[in-house]
Amino acid sequence: MPQLRVHNLAVSLDGFAAGPGQDLDHPLGIGGEGLHGWVFATRPFRESHDLPGGDVGMDADFIEQGDAGIGATIMGRNMFGPVRGAWPDETWTGWWGVDPPYHHPVFVLTHHARPPVTMEGGTTFTFVVDGIESALEQAFAAADGQDVRLGGGASTIQQYLRAGLVDELHVAIVPILLGSGERLFERVSEASDAYSCTELASSGSVAHVRLTRTA
Amino acid sequence: MPQLRVHNLAVSLDGFAAGPGQDLDHPLGIGGEGLHGWVFATRPFRESHDLPGGDVGMDADFIEQGDAGIGATIMGRNMFGPVRGAWPDETWTGWWGVDPPYHHPVFVLTHHARPPVTMEGGTTFTFVVDGIESALEQAFAAADGQDVRLGGGASTIQQYLRAGLVDELHVAIVPILLGSGERLFERVSEASDAYSCTELASSGSVAHVRLTRTA
Repeated sequence: MPQLRVHNLAVSLDGFAAGPGQDLDHPLGIGGEGLHGWVFATRPFRESHDLPGGDVGMDADFIEQGDAGIGATIMGRNMFGPVRGAWPDETWTGWWGVDPPYHHPVFVLTHHARPPVTMEGGTTFTFVVDGIESALEQAFAAADGQDVRLGGGASTIQQYLRAGLVDELHVAIVPILLGSGERLFERVSEASDAYSCTELASSGSVAHVRLTRTA
Repeated sequence: MPQLRVHNLAVSLDGFAAGPGQDLDHPLGIGGEGLHGWVFATRPFRESHDLPGGDVGMDADFIEQGDAGIGATIMGRNMFGPVRGAWPDETWTGWWGVDPPYHHPVFVLTHHARPPVTMEGGTTFTFVVDGIESALEQAFAAADGQDVRLGGGASTIQQYLRAGLVDELHVAIVPILLGSGERLFERVSEASDAYSCTELASSGSVAHVRLTRTA
């Protein structure tokens, strides 16, 4: 059975997946970029963004696992962009330029309908207005037998956790304190008994925790 | 300069240092005992509780470090016992029997005065009603040049973090989800910029994070 997987979701030691005050200038919230330095340093990330160099090793392996066997991605609207409310026009096509690093169908959860967007390199953005289950059905269909990756942000992941739809959850704990922001594990007590830790490892800069659904 | 150190403070992946519903039957809250299994498994813990066997290795090393160079301990009243409000009498002398595993002066923060208690094995319990700074002063004096360990619970640690008084904070992340309970990192944004991670390691069952005060 194809699975719904979360990978490389960075959270601070105090539990925040993004800093406070997310906007166009602070897509990850204030201080939130500190959550992602370990990603930017890896070779697979740099290759996928046409940058030279990068580290190999545990962190790079986790980044690669996040792409392996994935045929579609679901993300929340705030991960797609800083625009809130109704779309003023169709000029915003994501943070990632003309050739986003997905190269497969991406389903964006939103309350505001918008025609699909076809980018270069095989990425399409489809805007889903009828809920998380619909997005998941569409993503599984588009993935054509492969798994679906669930991107962020925190509130999107919480919705899928509460609905019991996440099969695997890989969290990367970054040992910084953000003080405030968007908590990952909040109002998800439904998930407490549903997962077992199947991997716990430290690269020295990040602690990787993999939870696998058991119930 | 003697330091105030927190050691082996276990928190769940979702950030709770104790489960919900702490009482006499559930001193660590419901599900909270799952936070401490890794401690009970170590040889130093078992030796200090006159139990045979136990594991050596990373987790055991961290448990030992928690005692090294410590001359006094501060703890919150809820860590001392389940009694709330005024002391009905003086029969409660802690969770640990006649010979608690401290063997040095322990200062218990409370709003309700009570005479000191002398236990076997060198442990004394002194009840401090005039605040966290007073407890710290008394503890440093009693430690006689050694460091002071700050025990739990979460709210006690938060008070000292907010006051900028914690020099070192070792958190052990246990990869379970409790769903609710007492969060460690809540209302401590004052501490966000004050610490650097000086150690991050995984024993396979627990991820150890050491923060050291830099500001």
